[in-house]
Amino acid sequence: MATANKRFVLASRPSGEPTAQNFRLEEVPLPALNDGEVLVRHHYLSLDPYMRGRMNEGKSYAQPQPLDAVMIGGTVGEVVESRAPEYKAGDKVVGMGGWQQYAVVAAQQPGALRKIDTSRVPISAYLGAVGMPGVTAWYGLNKIIEPKEGETIVVSAASGAVGGVVGQLAKAKGCRAVGIAGGADKCSHVVRDLGFDACIDYKRLDGVSAIASALKESCPDGIDGYFENVGGPILDAVMQNANAFSRIALCGMISGYNGAPIPMAAPQLILTNRMKVQGFIVSEHLPLWPQALAELGERVAKGTLKYRESVAQGIESAPEAFIGLLKGRNFGKQLVKLI
Amino acid sequence: MATANKRFVLASRPSGEPTAQNFRLEEVPLPALNDGEVLVRHHYLSLDPYMRGRMNEGKSYAQPQPLDAVMIGGTVGEVVESRAPEYKAGDKVVGMGGWQQYAVVAAQQPGALRKIDTSRVPISAYLGAVGMPGVTAWYGLNKIIEPKEGETIVVSAASGAVGGVVGQLAKAKGCRAVGIAGGADKCSHVVRDLGFDACIDYKRLDGVSAIASALKESCPDGIDGYFENVGGPILDAVMQNANAFSRIALCGMISGYNGAPIPMAAPQLILTNRMKVQGFIVSEHLPLWPQALAELGERVAKGTLKYRESVAQGIESAPEAFIGLLKGRNFGKQLVKLI
Repeated sequence: MATANKRFVLASRPSGEPTAQNFRLEEVPLPALNDGEVLVRHHYLSLDPYMRGRMNEGKSYAQPQPLDAVMIGGTVGEVVESRAPEYKAGDKVVGMGGWQQYAVVAAQQPGALRKIDTSRVPISAYLGAVGMPGVTAWYGLNKIIEPKEGETIVVSAASGAVGGVVGQLAKAKGCRAVGIAGGADKCSHVVRDLGFDACIDYKRLDGVSAIASALKESCPDGIDGYFENVGGPILDAVMQNANAFSRIALCGMISGYNGAPIPMAAPQLILTNRMKVQGFIVSEHLPLWPQALAELGERVAKGTLKYRESVAQGIESAPEAFIGLLKGRNFGKQLVKLI
Repeated sequence: MATANKRFVLASRPSGEPTAQNFRLEEVPLPALNDGEVLVRHHYLSLDPYMRGRMNEGKSYAQPQPLDAVMIGGTVGEVVESRAPEYKAGDKVVGMGGWQQYAVVAAQQPGALRKIDTSRVPISAYLGAVGMPGVTAWYGLNKIIEPKEGETIVVSAASGAVGGVVGQLAKAKGCRAVGIAGGADKCSHVVRDLGFDACIDYKRLDGVSAIASALKESCPDGIDGYFENVGGPILDAVMQNANAFSRIALCGMISGYNGAPIPMAAPQLILTNRMKVQGFIVSEHLPLWPQALAELGERVAKGTLKYRESVAQGIESAPEAFIGLLKGRNFGKQLVKLI
């Protein structure tokens, strides 16, 4: 039985890009459980762009990550000890255990822990296509973009955990799905493995007008829906190709997380094209999660929803993997494998 | 019986602000009516910011105003001759007669002409509070902003034909209504005559942060809905005070009509505040007009919806009045009185 727990706390707030010095590795003893608590051994830790926003002090939609506290993060793992009647050792669970090897969880705290079935779906998928990123894709596409058959849907960060699901769900609805990703490898994966109709490598293109031209070529009927994961020049280029009554779901603006806001060049297009631009945070739509997770899980089990993972090994690798994620060095869902 | 018709045609397309030279006054004979046509003598011509957009050649949501054709525009008047069974001389009508004293109208052309009741509502109101501007206010407020009792609703160009109605309808729904207008006279009118809770004189304020501070003072609980008539720095200032789940109805961006687009400084606020920003054009929602016009007409007849008009006299005054409108020189609905 393990008695020690390695974890990362936020040591200092980054200005601009985070560095390894912003995190501190600690080794602490595992406490004894109280009644109602379970001890979870984490198999995988999820790394996600939203964590960068939480590292800032300023007002945001969520409380900032406290200094000297365990870094926030989604986790999957196995119950190794339980003093709660709902759980027994061996149960596979998903939760928000944070950047650490073990977590002590109050089992009845709403949303803290959920049992998962790993017989048809790999456990790591519950942090990706059948987890928060998958539901994010599902919500933004179905509830904001509301695609109709034959429409053209564009998604940025298309090889990422969210973007890949957006395009595949759009294809399943009879839409043309066009991705934007950074690099030939990622674009090839998006088209060949995920089944998008096209993917634009923005790293080969210099500036808004070059991206806009590439979009025009890949979207001959214009753009009806855009799932925004990055912000900045790509958003401007999409807007230049937006159709009347098009919809933009704003899910992430990773390009602005590290520094100054990036302006939107031509907001009057929202008016002239009668567009809807709407931001959302998937954790505020919990009533829809069961429906979304059921659909996503079924698709993964049947093999009609594909995904790719970048797996870093060991808790010690978390900061570097996270810094790489913000630079787009991951390829698919970024995980840290802890066992 | 008149035999001649004075009219303005678009002589050339403006670059930047329009000038009197962009318009040409013509005097032409009135043609004889064909079967199914009516001759309408215009009492009032409506001048509206959207006309500036139509004067450009570029792609927009509507066909550009053709060169050498009569300038587009809403009109109210009286049927003076009819060869259509639906109309008789003396009928008061609203239509899109354009910048001219008389119009020959094919009575059965959908949307071309509509009879109006001037017994309880002044005829000119059908170009303002009980016309396109009023329905614009009604649609943007009710169908995009969807205000709830107790919320704070802000509207720019608050003393204008659209803005004044937005605030009064918001007040009727139990909201706090805050206007933004240019000049002490306009602001005083907005609060004293139209019943807004506050009005900010943006001309006394220099730059986004000054406007944002004034909004913060006038909107102590933040901004839940914003009806956008102007664009530019005012939009940025509003976004700095926007609440979570706030809604912006984009109706006009007059500040960008004459020149280069004005960027939106901080689009990431749409995400962090989970906002909805939506553009609309009221002419695309015709099925809702009867409901809106009935409510607006009833409020004007009862005196619970107030408005103010700037009236220029004579067809010859139309270009100058229009140029002044784009500069905010009007005070309330800008009309040209033709009789």
